[in-house]
Amino acid sequence: MIKQEQFESEPWALRERELRIDQLAQSESVFALSNGNLGLRGNLDEGEPSGLPGTYLAGFYESRRLPYAEAGYGYPEAGQTVINVTNGKLLRLLVGDELLDVEYGRLHKHERTLDLRAGVLERRVDWESPAGKRVKVSSTRLVSFTHRAVAAIRYEVEVDRPARIAIQSELVANEDSGTASDDPRTAAALTKPLVAQEGVAVGLRGLLSHQTRGSGLLMSAAMDHVISGPANLTSTIEQLGDVARLTLTANVQPGERVSIVKLLAYSWSSRRGLPSVHAQAIGSLAEAMHTGWDTLLAEQRAYLDEFWDRADVEIDGDPDRQLAVRFALFHVLQAGARAEGRAVAAKGLTGTGYDGHAFWDTESFVLPVLTYTAPNAARDALTWRHATLSVARDRARQLGLRGAAFPWRTIAGEECSAYWPAGTAAFHINADIGHAVGHYLRATGDERFRREEGLELLIETARLFASLGHHDAEGGFHIDGVTGPDEYSALADDNVYTNLMAQQNLRDAAYAAEHAPAKARRLGATSEELAAWRQAADRMAVPYDERLQVHPQDADFTRHAPWDFAATGDRYPLLLHFPYFDLYRKQVVKQADLVLALYLRGDAFTPEEKARDFAYYEAITVRDSSLSACTQAVIAAETGHLELAYDYFAEAADMDLEDLEQNTRDGLHIASLAGAWIAAVAGFGGLRDHDDTLSFSPRLPTPLTRLSLGIGYRGQLLRVEITTKEARYSLRHGPKLEVLHHGQPITVTSGKPASVAIPEISAGDPPRQPPGRAPRPARRK
Amino acid sequence: MIKQEQFESEPWALRERELRIDQLAQSESVFALSNGNLGLRGNLDEGEPSGLPGTYLAGFYESRRLPYAEAGYGYPEAGQTVINVTNGKLLRLLVGDELLDVEYGRLHKHERTLDLRAGVLERRVDWESPAGKRVKVSSTRLVSFTHRAVAAIRYEVEVDRPARIAIQSELVANEDSGTASDDPRTAAALTKPLVAQEGVAVGLRGLLSHQTRGSGLLMSAAMDHVISGPANLTSTIEQLGDVARLTLTANVQPGERVSIVKLLAYSWSSRRGLPSVHAQAIGSLAEAMHTGWDTLLAEQRAYLDEFWDRADVEIDGDPDRQLAVRFALFHVLQAGARAEGRAVAAKGLTGTGYDGHAFWDTESFVLPVLTYTAPNAARDALTWRHATLSVARDRARQLGLRGAAFPWRTIAGEECSAYWPAGTAAFHINADIGHAVGHYLRATGDERFRREEGLELLIETARLFASLGHHDAEGGFHIDGVTGPDEYSALADDNVYTNLMAQQNLRDAAYAAEHAPAKARRLGATSEELAAWRQAADRMAVPYDERLQVHPQDADFTRHAPWDFAATGDRYPLLLHFPYFDLYRKQVVKQADLVLALYLRGDAFTPEEKARDFAYYEAITVRDSSLSACTQAVIAAETGHLELAYDYFAEAADMDLEDLEQNTRDGLHIASLAGAWIAAVAGFGGLRDHDDTLSFSPRLPTPLTRLSLGIGYRGQLLRVEITTKEARYSLRHGPKLEVLHHGQPITVTSGKPASVAIPEISAGDPPRQPPGRAPRPARRK
Repeated sequence: MIKQEQFESEPWALRERELRIDQLAQSESVFALSNGNLGLRGNLDEGEPSGLPGTYLAGFYESRRLPYAEAGYGYPEAGQTVINVTNGKLLRLLVGDELLDVEYGRLHKHERTLDLRAGVLERRVDWESPAGKRVKVSSTRLVSFTHRAVAAIRYEVEVDRPARIAIQSELVANEDSGTASDDPRTAAALTKPLVAQEGVAVGLRGLLSHQTRGSGLLMSAAMDHVISGPANLTSTIEQLGDVARLTLTANVQPGERVSIVKLLAYSWSSRRGLPSVHAQAIGSLAEAMHTGWDTLLAEQRAYLDEFWDRADVEIDGDPDRQLAVRFALFHVLQAGARAEGRAVAAKGLTGTGYDGHAFWDTESFVLPVLTYTAPNAARDALTWRHATLSVARDRARQLGLRGAAFPWRTIAGEECSAYWPAGTAAFHINADIGHAVGHYLRATGDERFRREEGLELLIETARLFASLGHHDAEGGFHIDGVTGPDEYSALADDNVYTNLMAQQNLRDAAYAAEHAPAKARRLGATSEELAAWRQAADRMAVPYDERLQVHPQDADFTRHAPWDFAATGDRYPLLLHFPYFDLYRKQVVKQADLVLALYLRGDAFTPEEKARDFAYYEAITVRDSSLSACTQAVIAAETGHLELAYDYFAEAADMDLEDLEQNTRDGLHIASLAGAWIAAVAGFGGLRDHDDTLSFSPRLPTPLTRLSLGIGYRGQLLRVEITTKEARYSLRHGPKLEVLHHGQPITVTSGKPASVAIPEISAGDPPRQPPGRAPRPARRK
Repeated sequence: MIKQEQFESEPWALRERELRIDQLAQSESVFALSNGNLGLRGNLDEGEPSGLPGTYLAGFYESRRLPYAEAGYGYPEAGQTVINVTNGKLLRLLVGDELLDVEYGRLHKHERTLDLRAGVLERRVDWESPAGKRVKVSSTRLVSFTHRAVAAIRYEVEVDRPARIAIQSELVANEDSGTASDDPRTAAALTKPLVAQEGVAVGLRGLLSHQTRGSGLLMSAAMDHVISGPANLTSTIEQLGDVARLTLTANVQPGERVSIVKLLAYSWSSRRGLPSVHAQAIGSLAEAMHTGWDTLLAEQRAYLDEFWDRADVEIDGDPDRQLAVRFALFHVLQAGARAEGRAVAAKGLTGTGYDGHAFWDTESFVLPVLTYTAPNAARDALTWRHATLSVARDRARQLGLRGAAFPWRTIAGEECSAYWPAGTAAFHINADIGHAVGHYLRATGDERFRREEGLELLIETARLFASLGHHDAEGGFHIDGVTGPDEYSALADDNVYTNLMAQQNLRDAAYAAEHAPAKARRLGATSEELAAWRQAADRMAVPYDERLQVHPQDADFTRHAPWDFAATGDRYPLLLHFPYFDLYRKQVVKQADLVLALYLRGDAFTPEEKARDFAYYEAITVRDSSLSACTQAVIAAETGHLELAYDYFAEAADMDLEDLEQNTRDGLHIASLAGAWIAAVAGFGGLRDHDDTLSFSPRLPTPLTRLSLGIGYRGQLLRVEITTKEARYSLRHGPKLEVLHHGQPITVTSGKPASVAIPEISAGDPPRQPPGRAPRPARRK
């Protein structure tokens, strides 16, 4: 493995033994803790040095005016940007007037460990001040999965010689967030977005309330403490402006320990008043104090034990990827676990990249994982979409369409994309949402959700597509002028991915409406409308290039000029070196688009078509997006190119641990991390779920000797253990399940695992990628 | 005629007898004076009230940062905006301490006359102050065609009772330009763009020098005066900051007259220093003083006599349109006459609309007129394009293309379009430039220009198209992903207009290069390159829809959904009510595109194809652009729909006199005015000039009894007089000319006019337009 050497893999922990200041921002993302509601970047306890200080609340944003040199009808006027809220993780240490700062003095030991079973970030420091005073600091930080508003830190200090120390525990709002970036993908710098409303400092407790300047959201952050140490320990608390501060001072002897448990609680609202928001933070804080540190730790572990029991993916034969895939699952869980009515952003709550927006990533990459491993989180994410339906309906109206047009990027539901050819025109997001709904319903059998939010989401997205397309003179149904997943094409006619996903959406909506007729009637869905959806689906255009014997990505794609890879050199990502104009009109693919259709609508293609299509698109896909490798892994595996699949799997899994796109500093690539699971489970496990039967076609790439994966399915829990020769299906938490194994029906009964042989496959030569764009070999040479 | 009633038509003058404050801004545009280098809006002498104060210098601009909420590679960073420079036309009058202000007191008489033969704006005022003092003021304003830096005003005051008067003649920089508009088509408001550099006030002369804040351009404005009046007349001059002011005071008796001739000179430079710019203004001013008012007037008339002798279009049977077409020609001349190395903007120098930018309008609509009526101005405009070649080459490089990529909109040559699908992608502008070059060369036989600027422009634009397109597997040449003239489509493959214009460009370049081999070699054009251009031209794709038997506007156009006109109501222009997304993907046309190809590349279509294509596109063309009616007039006439042609002609001619698009306040639609000439000459005259022989197919619409038009051609001057029955071709300033009359060769010899009968034509039913989008009937009902 070609891995950054400061990180060490253990089966259940990521450990860092060396502090690299130049990679601090990356490590802050990697070591970020979140429960989906509250996120803390892995900033050092003492705040500085830092790459990007970050504390985030799901759904909490500042608005800003979107500027246009040439505006147009329907352009969004306001943008939404995640902001770094009040920092409660600060714990500064003074040793005889010298501030612990790892950039000064001598760092005898540095170790940080992200413990994936305990759900905590541990830190051990042995530091000698410039004046020669030496301290040992250990801190343990958690963001609670069981108390969604709460984070907690235990911070302990020991000395080797008698010393006077001071510990300052703070809440600080409007931190300087460092330098802005010119990269449009990085969040807009918003300086001092929080306006102080009130501050409290009493006993060991502090609180700050603020309101955002533009969006007018209210928030409170509160801290309380449990302290212990030598008898001479004293404390004072104060609050002024944007700071609340508890200061402990003590004369400490060797063998003595000063220990502080800091409990944090956050609350915010767009509607309620300050007293209510304030009270909620104090209430959550009181609950956490009542629960206490040890129980918080125990609950955290219990929550994760249950998760890992369902979701763990075991990999034998590649210890680094074993850790990487668990790291990925852990962060996917962190992004969605307790979002509960808020968007799951592309970066989760680990950084400000993409302005903190949620995209189609959530439904297309993150929810497939959560649906099988943490279904309540998947349901909550879809419930959030449902809660934004009225905004999406308004947007559809504005665009002259029926149904709902969900935003390409948003925090609160409003469209925030300022570049419509890759925003508004990417209507596939609506089918992606519909697909996630259908998938969730099939996987969980959640009847309440089917009748309520699910049905309405399906109906409104189907309406959108019915009004978006048109029937030609021969009756064929076409969706013109839209942008598919590949962002190096835009405004194309009959994008195959979009059309096939819309086809499914129309059918799923008709099916769901027929099975909940009363509710469907209340939503205005008539039998004529259902018939129109079915007809549009049945007549959906799926272009095919007879000459090349492949599916064009869109109606005109394979007629376009090839991209001149020979002249491209190393000018990647292409979008930073070539105009959209040229990218759009040539055969070059940023990310899986037709190939994603081969996966998600695999039922619409023959195996031979898949092989030819995959080879064709491999040769022109440059993978300038982190949303591509996992899909390529899945289809590479299906078409028998297991070594290639393994390389793509590794790329998805290594994305942030190795900072492959050099922007992990802005936050983790949650969808790529989800993609590591997808590559393992849908790739090597061959899981497909086009209909009501789970289908597996497991096959391992050479270096792996065993892969074990877990799928929660309609209350049952299926575990599939794959070796090179056979697969073993076993059932827990359920009576009986029919699955397909390489097309053969298998019945799995509780307590009676089924072991089945894996058939051989012979694929031809592996497809080729554009020069220099093959994935890194996953195996160490 | 459904005309604004405050304007009266005379054969050679536009007269206004009533001052409508609410339409002041429109009248300022209509009464604007310009010579192509210096432009003065028709603001009242006293400055206020005003709609939009305006004094403009061709090429003089302020730069501003173009904002992007989401930026991309190759997006222009800086915009250029025309600014209102130092106002020298101010002449304020005080009558016994009361300021002449037409909004107060009583206006007994108001008359303004734009005299198209004298080239002056006359004003007669009889005003009674609130206190009952009465004055008669007459002013005559000119912007000299013969002194390109100079304007002059004669201002005279008489009283009916003894009165103390004061006249203040000023230069004022950084005037308040009034309220900004939210319409993106209106110029960005730039407040106080000029930084004072120096000021002079001595004797009767004042001067102000300024520099633009962002673009760093230096300018000087200078004034001098010749005064006469009663013996008690005294004068003082002063200068402070942004103002220089001459104040005259006198006690005037009835029968006495105070007269002031104010001479103005402007200079500016992007390169030279302040002393030089200052000296140039003073030099021009001294020349004007030496010439004197009477001679300036005489030279102005002589210049226009010569122009009208060549260019006049006489129309019998519609007095209002007689004036309108002369008004149009006058303003086209004003826009281009002395631009000499600066861009001819879409609004000329009459307002700040479109930021003062030049577009393809210039080459495609204005230059065809100037080429036949003021060929030196056409040559100068093309020389300006040539002067920007290095910027255009850099832009092509940036876009990954060869040759030159001229900007969609600019003042100084740099691309200023901030919306690339309708800017950068509109590559047809390069073919439009090439077409204007070819046309100029054919019409003038200017061999020096052919070998120098003309050849280089043709070669560099041909190179662009050769690199922009690609050959398909069968060898067909395609230009994908570009935007044609119709701005309700974008990023289309094989736009027929673009392809046919590029075809011509490639052929013209190869031809020109072969006829100037030495220069072509110096420009690197090899015989292989010429062969490649010819091959691309010969294999150029021209899509055709066999099912509908029409040319699709682009490869996919006729496959797209029809626009729902029934649901559109009166929501025009569509771009203010519907998203580009929807406009682009449906069959709705903003402005002539395929129909423009039918005109400019009429040699590529059969008459039957023209008739079918015209009928098809008429039904879906909404004419939301002022660049459409004239082209529709031309093809309507060619296909025999003369009444319809007449309606479109009238729309082009009436555009500003009747403020049809409700934005004449921002400046005149110079291309639409040019279009009035095109509609008359190419429509009713049937002039085509695809090759070296002028071809006419004259035919008059019912109300006209006679149309006479003049064409300057290779030093000769052809006049064509058309009546309902016959056409009479006569030649002046030349020995002999072969022309075609309805396809029949005619030889016209000096002194021997040829009269030829006009054949009958029978067209079918006139084509229909979208509901509510038929042109206004030109004839009074």
